[in-house]
Amino acid sequence: MPMPTRREFIALAAGAGLAGAAGATAADTAAAARPSTRGRRERKARSLLISGATVIDGSADKPIEGQSVLIEGSRIKALGRRDELPVLSDTRIIDAQGKYVIPGLMNANVHLLADARLENLMRYAGRWEELIAEAAQVALKSGQTTVFDTYGPRRYLMTVRDRIAAGETVGSRIFCAGNIIGLDGPYSADFLTSTAEVASSALVNRVNAIWVENVGRRLMWLTPERVAQEVRVYIEKGIDFIKYASNDHVPGAFLAFSLEAQTAMVEEAHRAGLTAQAHTMSVEGLRIAIEAGCDIIQHPNITGPEPIPERTLESFARHKAGAAVFPITNKAYEHVMKTLAATARTMWSSADINVRNLIRSGAPLLLANDGAVFPPEFLTDPLVTRAWSVAPGEDNSIDLAKGHFYWFQAMEEKGCPPMEMLRAATRNIAVAYRRDKDLGTLEAGKIADVLILDRNPLQAAANYRSIHMILKEGEIIDRDALPATPMLTKPMEPPIEEERSYIPFLSKGR
Amino acid sequence: MPMPTRREFIALAAGAGLAGAAGATAADTAAAARPSTRGRRERKARSLLISGATVIDGSADKPIEGQSVLIEGSRIKALGRRDELPVLSDTRIIDAQGKYVIPGLMNANVHLLADARLENLMRYAGRWEELIAEAAQVALKSGQTTVFDTYGPRRYLMTVRDRIAAGETVGSRIFCAGNIIGLDGPYSADFLTSTAEVASSALVNRVNAIWVENVGRRLMWLTPERVAQEVRVYIEKGIDFIKYASNDHVPGAFLAFSLEAQTAMVEEAHRAGLTAQAHTMSVEGLRIAIEAGCDIIQHPNITGPEPIPERTLESFARHKAGAAVFPITNKAYEHVMKTLAATARTMWSSADINVRNLIRSGAPLLLANDGAVFPPEFLTDPLVTRAWSVAPGEDNSIDLAKGHFYWFQAMEEKGCPPMEMLRAATRNIAVAYRRDKDLGTLEAGKIADVLILDRNPLQAAANYRSIHMILKEGEIIDRDALPATPMLTKPMEPPIEEERSYIPFLSKGR
Amino acid sequence: MPMPTRREFIALAAGAGLAGAAGATAADTAAAARPSTRGRRERKARSLLISGATVIDGSADKPIEGQSVLIEGSRIKALGRRDELPVLSDTRIIDAQGKYVIPGLMNANVHLLADARLENLMRYAGRWEELIAEAAQVALKSGQTTVFDTYGPRRYLMTVRDRIAAGETVGSRIFCAGNIIGLDGPYSADFLTSTAEVASSALVNRVNAIWVENVGRRLMWLTPERVAQEVRVYIEKGIDFIKYASNDHVPGAFLAFSLEAQTAMVEEAHRAGLTAQAHTMSVEGLRIAIEAGCDIIQHPNITGPEPIPERTLESFARHKAGAAVFPITNKAYEHVMKTLAATARTMWSSADINVRNLIRSGAPLLLANDGAVFPPEFLTDPLVTRAWSVAPGEDNSIDLAKGHFYWFQAMEEKGCPPMEMLRAATRNIAVAYRRDKDLGTLEAGKIADVLILDRNPLQAAANYRSIHMILKEGEIIDRDALPATPMLTKPMEPPIEEERSYIPFLSKGR
Amino acid sequence: MPMPTRREFIALAAGAGLAGAAGATAADTAAAARPSTRGRRERKARSLLISGATVIDGSADKPIEGQSVLIEGSRIKALGRRDELPVLSDTRIIDAQGKYVIPGLMNANVHLLADARLENLMRYAGRWEELIAEAAQVALKSGQTTVFDTYGPRRYLMTVRDRIAAGETVGSRIFCAGNIIGLDGPYSADFLTSTAEVASSALVNRVNAIWVENVGRRLMWLTPERVAQEVRVYIEKGIDFIKYASNDHVPGAFLAFSLEAQTAMVEEAHRAGLTAQAHTMSVEGLRIAIEAGCDIIQHPNITGPEPIPERTLESFARHKAGAAVFPITNKAYEHVMKTLAATARTMWSSADINVRNLIRSGAPLLLANDGAVFPPEFLTDPLVTRAWSVAPGEDNSIDLAKGHFYWFQAMEEKGCPPMEMLRAATRNIAVAYRRDKDLGTLEAGKIADVLILDRNPLQAAANYRSIHMILKEGEIIDRDALPATPMLTKPMEPPIEEERSYIPFLSKGR
Repeated sequence: MPMPTRREFIALAAGAGLAGAAGATAADTAAAARPSTRGRRERKARSLLISGATVIDGSADKPIEGQSVLIEGSRIKALGRRDELPVLSDTRIIDAQGKYVIPGLMNANVHLLADARLENLMRYAGRWEELIAEAAQVALKSGQTTVFDTYGPRRYLMTVRDRIAAGETVGSRIFCAGNIIGLDGPYSADFLTSTAEVASSALVNRVNAIWVENVGRRLMWLTPERVAQEVRVYIEKGIDFIKYASNDHVPGAFLAFSLEAQTAMVEEAHRAGLTAQAHTMSVEGLRIAIEAGCDIIQHPNITGPEPIPERTLESFARHKAGAAVFPITNKAYEHVMKTLAATARTMWSSADINVRNLIRSGAPLLLANDGAVFPPEFLTDPLVTRAWSVAPGEDNSIDLAKGHFYWFQAMEEKGCPPMEMLRAATRNIAVAYRRDKDLGTLEAGKIADVLILDRNPLQAAANYRSIHMILKEGEIIDRDALPATPMLTKPMEPPIEEERSYIPFLSKGR
Repeated sequence: MPMPTRREFIALAAGAGLAGAAGATAADTAAAARPSTRGRRERKARSLLISGATVIDGSADKPIEGQSVLIEGSRIKALGRRDELPVLSDTRIIDAQGKYVIPGLMNANVHLLADARLENLMRYAGRWEELIAEAAQVALKSGQTTVFDTYGPRRYLMTVRDRIAAGETVGSRIFCAGNIIGLDGPYSADFLTSTAEVASSALVNRVNAIWVENVGRRLMWLTPERVAQEVRVYIEKGIDFIKYASNDHVPGAFLAFSLEAQTAMVEEAHRAGLTAQAHTMSVEGLRIAIEAGCDIIQHPNITGPEPIPERTLESFARHKAGAAVFPITNKAYEHVMKTLAATARTMWSSADINVRNLIRSGAPLLLANDGAVFPPEFLTDPLVTRAWSVAPGEDNSIDLAKGHFYWFQAMEEKGCPPMEMLRAATRNIAVAYRRDKDLGTLEAGKIADVLILDRNPLQAAANYRSIHMILKEGEIIDRDALPATPMLTKPMEPPIEEERSYIPFLSKGR
Repeated sequence: MPMPTRREFIALAAGAGLAGAAGATAADTAAAARPSTRGRRERKARSLLISGATVIDGSADKPIEGQSVLIEGSRIKALGRRDELPVLSDTRIIDAQGKYVIPGLMNANVHLLADARLENLMRYAGRWEELIAEAAQVALKSGQTTVFDTYGPRRYLMTVRDRIAAGETVGSRIFCAGNIIGLDGPYSADFLTSTAEVASSALVNRVNAIWVENVGRRLMWLTPERVAQEVRVYIEKGIDFIKYASNDHVPGAFLAFSLEAQTAMVEEAHRAGLTAQAHTMSVEGLRIAIEAGCDIIQHPNITGPEPIPERTLESFARHKAGAAVFPITNKAYEHVMKTLAATARTMWSSADINVRNLIRSGAPLLLANDGAVFPPEFLTDPLVTRAWSVAPGEDNSIDLAKGHFYWFQAMEEKGCPPMEMLRAATRNIAVAYRRDKDLGTLEAGKIADVLILDRNPLQAAANYRSIHMILKEGEIIDRDALPATPMLTKPMEPPIEEERSYIPFLSKGR
Repeated sequence: MPMPTRREFIALAAGAGLAGAAGATAADTAAAARPSTRGRRERKARSLLISGATVIDGSADKPIEGQSVLIEGSRIKALGRRDELPVLSDTRIIDAQGKYVIPGLMNANVHLLADARLENLMRYAGRWEELIAEAAQVALKSGQTTVFDTYGPRRYLMTVRDRIAAGETVGSRIFCAGNIIGLDGPYSADFLTSTAEVASSALVNRVNAIWVENVGRRLMWLTPERVAQEVRVYIEKGIDFIKYASNDHVPGAFLAFSLEAQTAMVEEAHRAGLTAQAHTMSVEGLRIAIEAGCDIIQHPNITGPEPIPERTLESFARHKAGAAVFPITNKAYEHVMKTLAATARTMWSSADINVRNLIRSGAPLLLANDGAVFPPEFLTDPLVTRAWSVAPGEDNSIDLAKGHFYWFQAMEEKGCPPMEMLRAATRNIAVAYRRDKDLGTLEAGKIADVLILDRNPLQAAANYRSIHMILKEGEIIDRDALPATPMLTKPMEPPIEEERSYIPFLSKGR
């Protein structure tokens, strides 16, 4: 009975769920703000006051009660007690008494076009930018005002990034890396291998080319100098940071690049004012990526059966590399232990130990979850529900709409201090990606990305869900209007007439 | 190295190229004309005279020189010498001196939506009717004024059929059967098996359901009575004739239905005023289909390694079943013998013997070729060019645009008398499908489907290509305007920028 | 993760478990006894008395108490009260007071070399005859004095058959059919398809040839006359009965041969004094096999989702065809319903209905179970334990050592009268295979195959397990000595040293 | 049509053909001689004189004419003009006038049990040691008196090694490494992946365990310290040198171990007095292996599409690492360029450039060829003859019986000086493996492994084939008696009777 192989669904899950995030070391802060100002159309500066809230600004060690935030145009003008602030007559007042104000959430690892299955890419041929925009709106709607896309089709991502930056499209602010340097395309051995068996050569090649360009597996054959050369060419195409594979994608224990090659890539990125990050899957892949000088490590807690040795934890903290950890909730963990094979169980057991050790290591933690949008017919497919590494039910940690909430919950369960969690979702990400001149905290002069919550997020992780209002660049987001054009978020179509009379000879799920 | 399995491309080729045609025995001739009148908008009757041609009317044993054809509205008013005909002052005169006038060609086996590969169906999701219309226009442009679709998605085919019949869309007149009763859908073991490994269960089920409805493989489990019952339900959905599988699709030697079940289906069709036909692939499958009373046998010359025994040839002629033969040209035959495996060679060797024997058998021959439209990236795919049973180059016998010309050429090579060939493409098809009240010959009262050729088709098969003018229902077809919206007939897109820098790690063709 | 495909393990299970048995109509009873006398070395006639038992002779409607059985040499001399019998002074007396004496059990469908997996055939290369002998000894040890092998390598089976008949090897009496006419070999699409992907072409071809010879799938292409011709050639090789495929092996709903071809084969067998039987899997396959005149139908209760129609049940009884039913116990049924997919559940649900209907139909029932010996590493393989159609635990109905006991139990659960069950395992099989001149009942003159049980088999099916003594051809079987050379019946080897330190990267069972 | 996937045959070919050799740096020369003395039974010292030959001793820069070699027992006693040597009366005289005397050839990379296909391992279950002995005899017969087995089942290899060393079995002297550290077993993703789909879990696990033990892919997850620890355990099992994977096996561009882990392993080997070597497949894998201190690099010329950079060539020479190059002849090269895909062509093109560069680099060259014995039905399998990377015809470079002759021929074609070639096959290997106290040259005190050739090997590479006599440890080898028990070297069996009548339905080769 032909059926999607488990391995491939796992690959897909892993592709969406584990294929890392972002780290930037932009020397030039002007460059850092580039996407958010480029081509922006002029608009009259609005004035707006969030009045009388408890403010957790991402910087101070404690919440400040009775604080107000004055916004002018897209930036924060000042914070303080309402009577201290220069409020104008036409300033719009938002009464935030009893509310909690925090910086807009950031996500250090999302995939805005994660569903690269043949049927999805073809169904929406010519509309990939709309898919990306939809995902950016799903992210924004759930409080994520900035997301870092760490694997996807560069050209399409950049187009949407620029449209959002220019105010032409609403959505989460996007920074993107394009391909994971060293990996091949969606229809290669790195991801959905079997697709090449049913799709035409022309299409397979085209899709892979769009994702990979000049920085695919071929680079593994080259000397460090030539690798750096190719990375330079790729950087010039306009990406915001680079991400490379320290380990392979599956099975995860091979190294894609030597320390020399990794160092050459990181230096190339830094020379261009960008940050560099690595996809790591083993303790050696992790160690080398840190030594190479990566600004951010994606899912450092995923190290196969072997927990991170103490020495590497120390190196992590010493280098101040951002740790974009992928915890899962207790509920998801139980699901894994009950349903998956020994190999997967060992892996998640180590992953859990690693998260706890990373919390106490002193390395800056970053919220990251491979956030992605998948259509309902995928998430309910018997093969996915059986093989998905993290339960696609309530605790689906890679769901772009909710996964960050599970992240907070999981980190709370693992003992992360509340203020650390908040910083992991805001300031730490801005710092690690070198976007902290504009983003990450509520301070005068910074971009006005703000969340107003009904309940105190420092009291319980679940309170991050109590979103009262979202402001991005000083504008109130109409959450009900998002996503503007539901595509993957549409509910599943009911069976058509023909399906009622059709009885498959041998069911696919057999 | 993942690659489309040969078996599957062969299956696809076979699906497109060998999955039979059509046979109708409509007792009710009113029903026979149904599609062409249903919902037609009123229009003023035009008058038109084709003047002074050599007419080969499909009925007379010889061409008639200096003959004119008078058309009024959509029908032929009269034939004769110009001075004998009641030409009006506003009659449009077409000077056909030195030309050859024949009935519009018919094709007893086409597939207007043949490319059911995942990428094609998804790329054109929501536009399948346009794909069908495009194919109907390709057929018309090349002189085929009536085509019989013998395997495809019923609902979509019927919609286009009705739009063309109503004059809302230009295109070849369509009669359709929907599913081949007894076979499962495109993404099943009968066709593109591997697709179920990469597509979601929901999609696989939906596509299969659309093609199959209640008449799939499940029927093979049932008693003859219950098979007939399901066929009755299917007929009521509005198909024009039924087609069932006497043999399986691949490998071809199994029987899908017993003589009793086949007879029950044929009787069910006849009761409803429809004709019945069978997909046969072995000498036993063929014998039983004839005994069951089929009006038409699809590709009776394809019988595996074993040529048709004399007794069955006699039975064929005695039952006057239409023989929708699939000859290939000498050039294609040489290609097969040079490139394909022993099994395929034996099969085509028998097929060749069978065609020659069928020509002399006295069974009515029908032009049929599984005519289909495939996009250029499919036809140039290395796997297709290597595995295709009949060369996809010049002599691609299943090309909807040219395959019928290869049919004439091949039959000429095999010694078929010229007038037999012309009838096989016109009158014989009309008779076998019980559409001869309206179609198939140039006679007063019949629908005015007419081809004007520059050269004499009875002199050389190649002369069928010399189309000067096509009239369908009395209207001159603007061939240059077809197809109106090129989709599959568009030329291949040039490589995009990303493809120039992308180097696959291991090429798919390896 | 590479893993044995479910489909293939199911195929294997089905191959072992559903690939039917045997039916013979030997006109010539001399021929019928052939294997049991051929080449037998002379030996002095022993005399033996089973004294004072309750005898259920397979013929009388009721048990006869206080009955003794006098055996001389290999045959029964007389039955009666002890004092009526001509017991000699040197007659060995077996005191059977309180015991139950029944004819030796027969099994209408076994596979003595069922495990055709590459590793098994190669591990025992050159020793296949020993494997067959081992199986014949497993059968004998559990009370089956005669077995009918309905699918296997003809030449090897015949050799062991003849050795046992000649008294050179101990074991159950064998009658064999060789290949199932119309099916291809073990490493073809009919059975273990994937093996051809890892084995050399030479080996694949050789193994398939050994099983298939001239009567494989090729016959499906031929006319009935030519099919019969090939069958004649095959019969001359010395098989005991013929078995052909009415339906295909998997998926089961296609017909392999038309009624004409089936009739021609049956007639060919009868002409040679052999019985004919069919492998059927659908209601149409079953109906045609009965009409073709088959003496025995294998697993007539397996008809896919559709129960046997009343008309076919009547035809069954009218033709007096032997019904070699394959019931499963309630426990196995529950296992199926809990673990298998919808398709399999529907199939087993119909199978259950069919068994009950066949019991009341009047058709002669035959005990049959695809009895086979598999090594422990196969039966404990995760993929087998998950996919096996009938639980490989306690109720593994195809286990050659115990499956017949499950058969009795299942038939009891389904309401079969106790005496019918006993006859199904003795007289009915002898009659259906036309071996009743020598076998099947305890009557003077018949071969002395006898079972002495501790408990009454007519009281409870479980009592068939209470074997006290087995006599075959008048000789007491030393059950403890069987099998003489354990091969597949050896217990699983403990892990070797290397396995303790080896940790697979990704476990096969993932 | 199921068929051995190309990828797997290529994997097999690569496994046999490219999976490297051996390098030992035994500090302790006693240990170095261990296998050749251990358990040897006492025997009276024979005396033997090779008289009047041209001696090319592997050490001197020029041949010495009119030279004699005096052997006593297993060692060379003296060399010189005959009249200078202390010849005894019972010394056996071998007249070598006009002949050429060279050291016994050594091969730095063979696989004595290379054919791990399921059918081979199972067919010879219980006889693997005989297979290894047969290969050792094939090697010896063709002039290879010492071979280094660089990948195989450790326990079995050591047993045969010890038996040969003890004089119990005749054959080439064996040194062995067991598993390639870091690779998984024969039935894993590293080699014959599909086998796990048809073999039982128990068997797959057992075979993999026998090859892998504690040093498989699992080590890639560990820290360098823990890797070294496992290697220590493995060394204690009695191997002669270690070999680890610097690159993966297929596709070849990933790194299995970091520089730190590689260094740790090399140090571990050196600490135990063993040499260390690496399997490399890319320029980075090669560079790191040299830096880690490897004594030998296997197939350094195989570096994917990218030739070795100058800097690495220099490092090679500086470290004096042994370069076990794998050249192919011009004829084989043309075959590759004509028949293989672009990827393979690029690879072989770089391989060719690399060999030429390595010749001029100054690195010590070693003869090595993955020498293996395969049975004829494998070598003639259509899939092998089509996919094999180096033609299995005349120029099959990995044939253990002839591959070393092709090596000489290929090196000659690429411009290697004749004396360099001779040393590559003798002294260089002894030095690189630290066995030069006993082996590699013709010097007084060394083990008397001697080849007498009819023609001058320095004049033409082809002259290595002109073997007149082989002495191993002072004993004349009876070449005609080898191999003693042909197994894989047996000619192919003729078709059996059944194969003549069997016609496969669809041929495997389709």
